[in-house]
Amino acid sequence: MAASGDGSVTGGTVPLARGEGLAAWRQIADGLSADIEAGRIAAGAQLPTEAALAARFGVNRHTVRRALAVLAGRGMVRATQGRGTFVEAPPLAYPIGRRTRFSEIVSRAGREAWGDLVAAAAVPADPGTAEALGLAPGAPVLELLTIHRADGTPLSTARTCLPLPRFSGFERAYAARGSLTRAYAEYGVGDYTRLSTRIGARAAAADEAARLEIAPGRVLIVLASVNVDGAGTRIQATRSLFAADRVELVVEG
Amino acid sequence: MAASGDGSVTGGTVPLARGEGLAAWRQIADGLSADIEAGRIAAGAQLPTEAALAARFGVNRHTVRRALAVLAGRGMVRATQGRGTFVEAPPLAYPIGRRTRFSEIVSRAGREAWGDLVAAAAVPADPGTAEALGLAPGAPVLELLTIHRADGTPLSTARTCLPLPRFSGFERAYAARGSLTRAYAEYGVGDYTRLSTRIGARAAAADEAARLEIAPGRVLIVLASVNVDGAGTRIQATRSLFAADRVELVVEG
Repeated sequence: MAASGDGSVTGGTVPLARGEGLAAWRQIADGLSADIEAGRIAAGAQLPTEAALAARFGVNRHTVRRALAVLAGRGMVRATQGRGTFVEAPPLAYPIGRRTRFSEIVSRAGREAWGDLVAAAAVPADPGTAEALGLAPGAPVLELLTIHRADGTPLSTARTCLPLPRFSGFERAYAARGSLTRAYAEYGVGDYTRLSTRIGARAAAADEAARLEIAPGRVLIVLASVNVDGAGTRIQATRSLFAADRVELVVEG
Repeated sequence: MAASGDGSVTGGTVPLARGEGLAAWRQIADGLSADIEAGRIAAGAQLPTEAALAARFGVNRHTVRRALAVLAGRGMVRATQGRGTFVEAPPLAYPIGRRTRFSEIVSRAGREAWGDLVAAAAVPADPGTAEALGLAPGAPVLELLTIHRADGTPLSTARTCLPLPRFSGFERAYAARGSLTRAYAEYGVGDYTRLSTRIGARAAAADEAARLEIAPGRVLIVLASVNVDGAGTRIQATRSLFAADRVELVVEG
């Protein structure tokens, strides 16, 4: 197996070792893994279709599907409904500090940043959110559910709460701009800084894995953060779930 | 089920619901979970023996063992070979910054800090360690494998590399003192600071889970950090694996 210049996998039929006690799906998974680790299949490359891989290895599609599931379970590829299977990029170094901005971090890495708005609703603040924002429990907040992508790949999904009525209509600004920083600018928030970040980790639930396009049970890094505006007023409480295969957080000492 | 003053679980035989489609092990696991979440069984408390629980619920020990495995899988209890099963404490808030010291953080939380030396060896620095320490690849370093405990519970296990010959014999100082800070003092390093920390997360391998006394496959937070002495010289490269159920990292903005 080898990668062509455009990052796709090329080559004719590949013989599998028969009768050596290693199942065909396992041999295919190990072979593709080795190619990805050695860089022979480039990060971000799309794998051939199941049908094409089945023809190449002389196996049925069920066998190919099982091999690809192994690679997804290792966090090496990402299967996207209707779009195909892609090789994961190396983890993005993601600095955590006073001026942490998703869009800037991703752009600086030479990748295109975009935030999708999945849902928005005005809700009463739960106790944790109220405390984070310095509000009375039950005070109205705007809750946004978002997915944050680098070159289309989801790096994180987040639940963000902003105080109302100050940020009334913010969901439309966010949906149009695809960035908190750019949406804040519409609300006169030219600067905002990180007050604190708490970091944990756990396995992904099914709905979280689906939003991040990772295999269920893969590991998430959980960030709970609070941002303040230029005047020091708390304007944002966010719980972000990062696909641990796709980012490495960096804290300067 | 209820907790007595000494934190142990007390009470007579507890009736299980029969014929309602919920297996006995599941009912026992859910009942103990609810007691732990509500604080009726205290964090750090030792659960009764399998035999005692089997007698209380009127089931065999296999059923009890299955229920306890479910709780361990949820990260709610910790089974220790030969010592029994303990209720997990709530996660410790662990600040990451310029002066991150395990012993101070744990002591400040009112818990007893101790580091166990598992193994030590003089080895040639691998490329990553050499780069972190500013050494030539293959330069001699002292590699320590350690387990870091709060009140006896492992919070993390670490692989630490220190340059040789400067820290020759450091493993004896560490084994005697149970703390890097105290061992450094013997080597004239009165102050040291964190240069950088990189944070990732993944599932625990079997040997890592065993050192941390967690169920295999539970989630680890991986910290790669570099420390410098008062003169700014790199003296320590560490890869720490924290049990994600037991700590929450805190980064001030």
